[in-house]
Amino acid sequence: MNALVYNGPGKKAWEEKPKPGIVKPTDALVKIIKTTICGTDLHILKGDVPEVSEGRILGHEGVGVIEEVGNAVTAFKKGDHVLISCITSCGKCSFCRKAMYSHCEDGGWLLGHLIDGTQAEFVRIPYADTSLYHIPTNIDEDALVMLSDILPTGLECGVLNGRVAPGDTVAIVGAGPIGLATLLTAQFYTPAEIIVIDIDENRLAVAKQFGATQAINSSSENATEQIMRLTQNKGVDVAIEAVGIPSTFQLCQEIIGAGGRIANVGVHGKAVSLHLETLWSKNITITTRLVDTVTTPMLLKTVMANKLDAGKLITHRFSLKNIMEAYATFANAAEEKALKIILTND
Amino acid sequence: MNALVYNGPGKKAWEEKPKPGIVKPTDALVKIIKTTICGTDLHILKGDVPEVSEGRILGHEGVGVIEEVGNAVTAFKKGDHVLISCITSCGKCSFCRKAMYSHCEDGGWLLGHLIDGTQAEFVRIPYADTSLYHIPTNIDEDALVMLSDILPTGLECGVLNGRVAPGDTVAIVGAGPIGLATLLTAQFYTPAEIIVIDIDENRLAVAKQFGATQAINSSSENATEQIMRLTQNKGVDVAIEAVGIPSTFQLCQEIIGAGGRIANVGVHGKAVSLHLETLWSKNITITTRLVDTVTTPMLLKTVMANKLDAGKLITHRFSLKNIMEAYATFANAAEEKALKIILTND
Amino acid sequence: MNALVYNGPGKKAWEEKPKPGIVKPTDALVKIIKTTICGTDLHILKGDVPEVSEGRILGHEGVGVIEEVGNAVTAFKKGDHVLISCITSCGKCSFCRKAMYSHCEDGGWLLGHLIDGTQAEFVRIPYADTSLYHIPTNIDEDALVMLSDILPTGLECGVLNGRVAPGDTVAIVGAGPIGLATLLTAQFYTPAEIIVIDIDENRLAVAKQFGATQAINSSSENATEQIMRLTQNKGVDVAIEAVGIPSTFQLCQEIIGAGGRIANVGVHGKAVSLHLETLWSKNITITTRLVDTVTTPMLLKTVMANKLDAGKLITHRFSLKNIMEAYATFANAAEEKALKIILTND
Amino acid sequence: MNALVYNGPGKKAWEEKPKPGIVKPTDALVKIIKTTICGTDLHILKGDVPEVSEGRILGHEGVGVIEEVGNAVTAFKKGDHVLISCITSCGKCSFCRKAMYSHCEDGGWLLGHLIDGTQAEFVRIPYADTSLYHIPTNIDEDALVMLSDILPTGLECGVLNGRVAPGDTVAIVGAGPIGLATLLTAQFYTPAEIIVIDIDENRLAVAKQFGATQAINSSSENATEQIMRLTQNKGVDVAIEAVGIPSTFQLCQEIIGAGGRIANVGVHGKAVSLHLETLWSKNITITTRLVDTVTTPMLLKTVMANKLDAGKLITHRFSLKNIMEAYATFANAAEEKALKIILTND
Repeated sequence: MNALVYNGPGKKAWEEKPKPGIVKPTDALVKIIKTTICGTDLHILKGDVPEVSEGRILGHEGVGVIEEVGNAVTAFKKGDHVLISCITSCGKCSFCRKAMYSHCEDGGWLLGHLIDGTQAEFVRIPYADTSLYHIPTNIDEDALVMLSDILPTGLECGVLNGRVAPGDTVAIVGAGPIGLATLLTAQFYTPAEIIVIDIDENRLAVAKQFGATQAINSSSENATEQIMRLTQNKGVDVAIEAVGIPSTFQLCQEIIGAGGRIANVGVHGKAVSLHLETLWSKNITITTRLVDTVTTPMLLKTVMANKLDAGKLITHRFSLKNIMEAYATFANAAEEKALKIILTND
Repeated sequence: MNALVYNGPGKKAWEEKPKPGIVKPTDALVKIIKTTICGTDLHILKGDVPEVSEGRILGHEGVGVIEEVGNAVTAFKKGDHVLISCITSCGKCSFCRKAMYSHCEDGGWLLGHLIDGTQAEFVRIPYADTSLYHIPTNIDEDALVMLSDILPTGLECGVLNGRVAPGDTVAIVGAGPIGLATLLTAQFYTPAEIIVIDIDENRLAVAKQFGATQAINSSSENATEQIMRLTQNKGVDVAIEAVGIPSTFQLCQEIIGAGGRIANVGVHGKAVSLHLETLWSKNITITTRLVDTVTTPMLLKTVMANKLDAGKLITHRFSLKNIMEAYATFANAAEEKALKIILTND
Repeated sequence: MNALVYNGPGKKAWEEKPKPGIVKPTDALVKIIKTTICGTDLHILKGDVPEVSEGRILGHEGVGVIEEVGNAVTAFKKGDHVLISCITSCGKCSFCRKAMYSHCEDGGWLLGHLIDGTQAEFVRIPYADTSLYHIPTNIDEDALVMLSDILPTGLECGVLNGRVAPGDTVAIVGAGPIGLATLLTAQFYTPAEIIVIDIDENRLAVAKQFGATQAINSSSENATEQIMRLTQNKGVDVAIEAVGIPSTFQLCQEIIGAGGRIANVGVHGKAVSLHLETLWSKNITITTRLVDTVTTPMLLKTVMANKLDAGKLITHRFSLKNIMEAYATFANAAEEKALKIILTND
Repeated sequence: MNALVYNGPGKKAWEEKPKPGIVKPTDALVKIIKTTICGTDLHILKGDVPEVSEGRILGHEGVGVIEEVGNAVTAFKKGDHVLISCITSCGKCSFCRKAMYSHCEDGGWLLGHLIDGTQAEFVRIPYADTSLYHIPTNIDEDALVMLSDILPTGLECGVLNGRVAPGDTVAIVGAGPIGLATLLTAQFYTPAEIIVIDIDENRLAVAKQFGATQAINSSSENATEQIMRLTQNKGVDVAIEAVGIPSTFQLCQEIIGAGGRIANVGVHGKAVSLHLETLWSKNITITTRLVDTVTTPMLLKTVMANKLDAGKLITHRFSLKNIMEAYATFANAAEEKALKIILTND
């Protein structure tokens, strides 16, 4: 089969690799129908994620069809259409038993990271019974690819950790795909105001279309001053960090109101300064989280009930065999106005 | 001034009464701008609420303007526009301190019940600082009257007690004004399905317009069978009782799924049969509640942010001086297709 | 091997049965070290649980040692000492994924009910990885048998569902083994008062030793009046029903305070009357639950840290081969002052 | 009357001041029976709290007797014995209505800070109805002084924010009075292990007496290594910072396990480094809080029920008129082995 392979920093190729097979009785072999590229894949390609070894097939998102299952798999059979979760969960360890699959003792983020991933014609999925989800056959599978990672990440790390509630004023710092996924799922809880901050005018325009009540370009405006003005100096109830750098985390600290929640979604590469000298008495909560994908069943229900238009996040489509071109587009997201790219294994 | 007075079972009149004044330093005198009639007022008129004495002015909902405040009132001054809460809260007792204003030791449901109410040109509001809410002057005051009682009741007793969550399947039994208020506020939490059950086709049609995904006429269909079929025999996640009779509470027990919540909103006049012989092992939760109106600030924010169209519940408008005619319309709600009636003190 | 077999209503025998073996790759075969008898076993023997077929080996509690595991079992190996949970959990179905193992689609209460149980020399445990717990070898195994069912039941159905909190006034209706397990685990949360109600003086005396602050004999005193007097007519914060008959559930309704929680633990055989005509406005919560055993890891930690003296519940000890004598003692619990009986497979 | 007056950095005196009187109708005048000195008072005396003006009477803790009440006070009358809360709450503003009294718009930490305090023969208490608590006359009033600040602070900022639960492993960094108050109240929730870290051997010895299961002297041992060893490299469930300097907050970050909570109690004077480069994926929660004193009623119940021995924290007693000597002792706490000092107005 063919797959997108990481060949060390800066090097990737669409090349032939052996078709995977069942290794353990709890495995499934899935033929990819649709997959996508994540910002994390670009980080890996830069060499920022050293635990990814050379030769690794990338990708941790996708929809597929079951090709074969191990003899301990009971929930799936050949021919079933499935959503692949970016997080592998054994279902048995103490973390899985408390719904913290991200820290599964024999799972977590494995696909396209510690084992071969989904940017391929076939992928082996460990612990299939607890890491795949049934999907109906008559559904828009492009949209469902958004449920592998980006939507549960925005929802769990941002919205749920931020405890977004009806009537709240929410700030989302960063309008990339994850920030926009956070914006879409924040609306499950009917906040009164959603202020989105970014430095890209196109993304801010998209944010307004997706439900932001205010869009602030922090490269041309003083975001802190603007937000304090919009909130009559009270600050926001929830500040969601969806970038991953010190200055955006700093902004969250500046705009958070007393009793507020700062929910970190961004992947950070260095320490930030936490201003306890002012925050110690402000009754705030700061959370971090690697997505657990515990909300996948709920997200599937909302998509199927037409309460969430997940497909909105898709801007480009390519054939899987043209993935090198797709990567070029995605790496140049600002100019290409790219959010999520669907790759079809046709 | 003139007021609608309860003169004993079956007897009411729009008659002259002395204008109220400030009695305690925490009181406010409010000139009514808008008020409405509640189903509870009809119960009082039937003689079902014996603690209401003859001569009592009815009404516990409304919007008005401050005419005068006692010398301990600090949050309001003459000329302020206010929303009147149906629940009076002292802010000091142990119940108020735990946000259970309904059981306030010197408050609770007083207006139009134990003290004179809002179906009058003026009303005295005890504990004004903690029982009134500021409203902007440029807002649709008709819509805000819905925030005195009906919307917090649906939200608190039904939606919050039922813990409605994204993706849930919710059944609302009863599509009267309270059931419809529950339907509107349930959508704050993006359930996947909302099934409304009633025996009035008009109200079911309104429910569909208001967001119900299914409407079942239980006079012509077997509601239990229908719902079990719609839910693949799993039952619903949340069943909200908004009628107040044994048969509708029974229906909730029949359709509740394992792990589900039955939230009682209806005012009951007699005991019901609780089927613990089947429910003991179903991990269900049953709640009761007199509205606390703790959600009033949140509801005001959602209305002001255009996230809740509270005015939808209004079907008729009268001048306050024609309240006798309004009562006649409201008492004949099915034929008149009446939900909430706005009375304007013009 | 030998086992205690249900041979139809009123008939049981300690008789020879084939030694079980591994049927599915997720099974374990456990050699029983210790087991016990539950009140439910007496109900089965009376014929009250019709789904138990003749020839069934009873028992759903115990501690043992792994004899053999199926090839998909990864967490246990021959020789491991294990605690057997009364609830079998597949770890994969939607109920298990939300920690509601009691309703596991391929598990739940199986042992000594729908499949052969633990009152035997050996027992087959389905879904071993998610239905057994490792225990250290140097621990009091008698005490741990209390963690198979009785302690998680009291804790989950009574204490957690009742949301017992520091400073609360709690009433526990029924001082049998389950009521006493509730009493022990309620103290995890430091309530101010724990009032225990029963009709057996010996059990009330035990309750006082176990931490009850008040003991009321409802056969000689008016429990409702007593409790209302003790609580200055406020009623209790939490009422836990640990009997399973209408009159004890009625008592809970009479003594519950505004805002209180009634947590049902008892197994009920018929409907009860729910007084919504008074409770509709009291802001109460009523819960039911079949134990999920989600608290087993927490209970193991508290026992190992000497924060819970689970062994206190044990009053009698027999050799497993003398189980018929043990049943006679347990069936005559009041006279024998029996709570829990340990049976040792020696 | 006499009072302890702050006369600028480094200067304090027990001097004559005018007896306060009722200023607003919601005030009470309280004659002090007992008071104490807080570590915060030492900070003020150093000049670290610039908003404290010269001439201010210090102190924010105490028990007293009502001397006079304003005409809007309804819950208290002359002669009532009262506990004074360190936090003044108006009961009416949006923060008070959500139980966040620390941020009361007209209250919060006023006593001995923005208005005259309790280290005096008399003190004026604003918003008496919502800032004082009735206490019985036959109770140990020394112990109750611990409920003005130190015990609610440990409980709310440390234990509740840290969500301490049965079976948890908890680390408390700092065994000063606040750390020890945290230790006492953490036991309301029955954690399995409580590890206390300090650099003072005496305080560590006290911690062991008060219920710590491990005591680590971080001046002679590597606390991080020790704790990781004690927790089999999992880290702790809850880390409570009760010092207020970067190195202790750093320790909390090193020892927190995946899914854990860091609850900040300490008052910080400068920013700390937050290691998001490792914590971003650890699913942790960090909280800050100025005590709200919402738990005061609960603490009163636990003290009266003998579930909390608050008096344990008292090491020294002085007459109020000898407060200068008491300050000298408290300022030299390590050598004097001083925790809390009771000052009696005799």
